[in-house]
Amino acid sequence: MAGKACNVLITGANRGLGLEMVKQLLEMPCPNRKIFACCRDPSAPKSQGLQELAKKHPGVIHVIRLDTTDPRGVKEAAKQVGAIVGKSGLNLLVNNAAVLFNGTMQTTGVKEMQDAYNTNIIGPMLVTKEFLPYLCEAARSSGKMGMSCSRAAVINISTTLASISTVPEMFSNFPATPYRVTKAGLNMLTVCNSLEFKKDGVLFTLLHPGWVRTDMGTQAADIDAHESVRGMLRVMDSLTEKHNGAFLDYEGKPMPW
Amino acid sequence: MAGKACNVLITGANRGLGLEMVKQLLEMPCPNRKIFACCRDPSAPKSQGLQELAKKHPGVIHVIRLDTTDPRGVKEAAKQVGAIVGKSGLNLLVNNAAVLFNGTMQTTGVKEMQDAYNTNIIGPMLVTKEFLPYLCEAARSSGKMGMSCSRAAVINISTTLASISTVPEMFSNFPATPYRVTKAGLNMLTVCNSLEFKKDGVLFTLLHPGWVRTDMGTQAADIDAHESVRGMLRVMDSLTEKHNGAFLDYEGKPMPW
Repeated sequence: MAGKACNVLITGANRGLGLEMVKQLLEMPCPNRKIFACCRDPSAPKSQGLQELAKKHPGVIHVIRLDTTDPRGVKEAAKQVGAIVGKSGLNLLVNNAAVLFNGTMQTTGVKEMQDAYNTNIIGPMLVTKEFLPYLCEAARSSGKMGMSCSRAAVINISTTLASISTVPEMFSNFPATPYRVTKAGLNMLTVCNSLEFKKDGVLFTLLHPGWVRTDMGTQAADIDAHESVRGMLRVMDSLTEKHNGAFLDYEGKPMPW
Repeated sequence: MAGKACNVLITGANRGLGLEMVKQLLEMPCPNRKIFACCRDPSAPKSQGLQELAKKHPGVIHVIRLDTTDPRGVKEAAKQVGAIVGKSGLNLLVNNAAVLFNGTMQTTGVKEMQDAYNTNIIGPMLVTKEFLPYLCEAARSSGKMGMSCSRAAVINISTTLASISTVPEMFSNFPATPYRVTKAGLNMLTVCNSLEFKKDGVLFTLLHPGWVRTDMGTQAADIDAHESVRGMLRVMDSLTEKHNGAFLDYEGKPMPW
């Protein structure tokens, strides 16, 4: 289960869902656990909560500087993590960092479209590519068969707003065109990855965290980060090769494309 | 019908499907027709076929320089077209220009991912934004009700490779990850547009042209450009507000997301 994945890396781990995931993983018993909590700027005020948590759990939480859109930075972070995990590799990579622009096409400029693409698609792509050798290493060294989050898995955090078939129901309340376009692209990327890396025993699954009361989701949202992450960790726990390339919500319900 | 849309603009019109569409539109009777055949470099050798066709149809075919990824160039092209169409506006915009990279994630670099995004998503977005006032003008001045390609429509050329649900069937033969990711994003953009501009009476529909023997489709493909375009024009002919936001193939069959 996700709680049994020894070595876990989470992007965007200084806030919202990422930080909550770090917290809940700490509560799940797993010997020799290492949590790589990544964020763009570990010394920024908005990373303070994560830093305080890390101080209380030395050797367990490793705060890593990672701007997912910077190819050299991603390589550097991968080197650091590789040196720590060694032959056990990385069991679970959670691509959680994302940006939301809630505009329509008319109110969206090229720069916002580019920023959304860089963070929501290029970022997960760069991170997955650089950390893939460690995921393959974990798949080989785990002694486990089949696919699971405790062996080797990439969880890409998607959204119900990435479902093309449900746009008509929700567009007027929440257009978010750049977010929708890039998250639909991330869905496609993840399904492609699930086929490309099947031979390596690395599971790829998309999760919709629900509409969550975070900085991104606003205070008007349905559920809190605790409930969302508790659900997602439970779903991760249940994933097998059957879910390779699947898109599920935080309760395990399949989401439409 | 598409053949009755007076003023039509096609991107990537110097080759393949775009050029074939110009040819077939010429064969369809429509008084005062104006075809804006756009390409990145009208003076390049690969635009020679289009230039020769334009010489035979002066006042009907207007060859327009348009690099869809260059915001200033798109504005400039829109000015030129606006001066020619005047109060009749633009009835039909076909976003056809696209690039294909047939790699997996492992063989794809950031530059290819960026190029695919610029041409396959940012391009159609910029072109649609700049030409939208002329499309709205056509919707107002056409004297027609409802939605149709003869009133005001944007046809975005998509692909079966953009269907997330069918990736498992086709990935091993044709990974094309950057193409799939950006075309899935284009599908999302088009559905968003169909809702954003519904109030303006502008129809947005996605078409899959089939697997076509062009430079992009290679000579191994199923059908020739003539058959694909004949089918697509027939489908465009049949479109109504029911098809706003739809994804159809060149025979009119609905495609899965």
